Amino acid sequence: MDTITLKGPYLIFLGRETRQAFAKTGLGLVEWRRDLCLGQLRLPGGIADLGVPDMTLGEAVKRGVGSLVIGTAAIGGKVPDEWVAVLLEAAGLGLDIVAGLHSSLSAVEGLPEAAEESGARLVNVRIPPVHLPVGSGKKRSGKRVLMVGTDCAVGKKYTALQLEKDMKAQGLNATFRASGQTGIMIAGSGIPIDAVVSDFVVGAAELLSPANAEDHWDVIEGQGGIFHPAYAPVSLGLLLGSQPDAFVVCHDAGRETISGWEHMPVPEISQVIDRTVALGSLTNPAIECVGISVNTAHLSDDERAAYLDDLSRRHGLPCVDPLKNGTGSIIARLTTLNEKQSASA
Amino acid sequence: MDTITLKGPYLIFLGRETRQAFAKTGLGLVEWRRDLCLGQLRLPGGIADLGVPDMTLGEAVKRGVGSLVIGTAAIGGKVPDEWVAVLLEAAGLGLDIVAGLHSSLSAVEGLPEAAEESGARLVNVRIPPVHLPVGSGKKRSGKRVLMVGTDCAVGKKYTALQLEKDMKAQGLNATFRASGQTGIMIAGSGIPIDAVVSDFVVGAAELLSPANAEDHWDVIEGQGGIFHPAYAPVSLGLLLGSQPDAFVVCHDAGRETISGWEHMPVPEISQVIDRTVALGSLTNPAIECVGISVNTAHLSDDERAAYLDDLSRRHGLPCVDPLKNGTGSIIARLTTLNEKQSASA
Repeated sequence: MDTITLKGPYLIFLGRETRQAFAKTGLGLVEWRRDLCLGQLRLPGGIADLGVPDMTLGEAVKRGVGSLVIGTAAIGGKVPDEWVAVLLEAAGLGLDIVAGLHSSLSAVEGLPEAAEESGARLVNVRIPPVHLPVGSGKKRSGKRVLMVGTDCAVGKKYTALQLEKDMKAQGLNATFRASGQTGIMIAGSGIPIDAVVSDFVVGAAELLSPANAEDHWDVIEGQGGIFHPAYAPVSLGLLLGSQPDAFVVCHDAGRETISGWEHMPVPEISQVIDRTVALGSLTNPAIECVGISVNTAHLSDDERAAYLDDLSRRHGLPCVDPLKNGTGSIIARLTTLNEKQSASA
Repeated sequence: MDTITLKGPYLIFLGRETRQAFAKTGLGLVEWRRDLCLGQLRLPGGIADLGVPDMTLGEAVKRGVGSLVIGTAAIGGKVPDEWVAVLLEAAGLGLDIVAGLHSSLSAVEGLPEAAEESGARLVNVRIPPVHLPVGSGKKRSGKRVLMVGTDCAVGKKYTALQLEKDMKAQGLNATFRASGQTGIMIAGSGIPIDAVVSDFVVGAAELLSPANAEDHWDVIEGQGGIFHPAYAPVSLGLLLGSQPDAFVVCHDAGRETISGWEHMPVPEISQVIDRTVALGSLTNPAIECVGISVNTAHLSDDERAAYLDDLSRRHGLPCVDPLKNGTGSIIARLTTLNEKQSASA
């Protein structure tokens, strides 16, 4: 039993993409794992640009690339016809093909055969590993901090990645753990928690952040939201299996209703904190909120400062927009937590 | 999109089963749906007995049987060799084969072909329907009462079935809704909620108890437990999707630790009530506990009466062992609830 594990480094495939916004996955990879991205491969007419060297499949093989990663969204989730020749050649050369497509790579004619012959893998990061365990509820060594959201798409992945980066910059021992498809490509491993059968979702989350050194922090990407009318079970499974010592509430300052469920209000941050502590204490009674991360893209600088100050005063917690402020104040709180727990041990 | 739907009536297949206890599924079917069970089919040497007429496949077809239902546990979950001839003949005659086996009926040589030729289906009640929706969180018409447990295997299915039976006996409009494999065979339809991908578990639960007449009660089989270290996400999904107006807490009087997770205590009944109200109010703010159903098999008659009286006094709720007391006092409470809500409407 293991998580999905990708073979690096990557060559990122953008097809004939012309719109920068649709190359979001590729841009995320380059932003967070520049060293893992040796180059980009674009078809004639493709002008979206990740700012990394253009590279042929032949060069990629010479440079030791492990995977061709699809870095753009395919319209309708289907593999476009003009991609097929590249995918076949890449698989023939022994490169793994990595995608988060709704349609299956195995449905591309000749691709499974080409991959099998060369020993390459067709990896869909939306598909969880088989033979996942059920949750054990048993405590593991090491420390964990989980992102929890007031809704989907509020910056949970971004916050976790920024936190990992800032912790590493301070010399702390930290690992980003991916629970969704883009995160898995960035981390090079992970489990798409929302695609796991509900009986095994806690067990999958336990597998995602295995036992580790006592001073090691897993920084775990969150999913959904505990007040989400459809995805709360995913969030609960991730919470129970992660057994987090700490969590960060992620919120979008402009959001008033659950995205896509406009008849449901976004919960109060205090409700999310209380509920997360109540539910999470089943597998880690020491669970504690260490900060609030807010997407304040729609606020002016003045408004942002006032908003975060007010939030911080009301909750007695560090509140940041990680894009603007970094996560230093949250890390300071995490460190205190570490000392407090060591002192009480 | 629909639930699993079985074709009745049933012929129950017991193979060469000699141990009554292993024919549990068949016994449950006969206990709760005697009219649906036209007969049993036993192989030479099989002495387990459901107390219904022995019947050949030929007779079954003449009598209009729709499905051959596997009513006994196969050792290791694999189809025994001596069953194969019967299954092939049944499928050839156009009978659906219904099982909850871990192994697949399609793996039995020749069986998929025999079924396809006659138009019969091979139905594994452990496999959820495809194309389930995500939860909507939108209120549906009709009333719902959900069984929730302090643990797995505490009598949630039994309580729901007894409640349905007693409600019908009082002339109330009630339907048992099955969320697990044995329940699905008994109800003739349902969804194995624990086998649903976590993103869709709320949506599956919504589908399980669709909009209905305002005076109609869905009596919904529970799964897992909201304090269960592995299965709580299943329970939460079922709770959010069922949007229950009422719930019954099911408990085993002898249980002190979570079965199979002996390092975790069984929660207090009051904790289960409070947590269920807190979580369930997201999709139905009127949710209310209407009773406690206890398996008191290990208590003497005197002990039972004292235990249930004490519980009832402490919680201010009807407390019964449905096997001993029926569910009349819980139904009385449900009825009050109905009047209260009508009055406030």
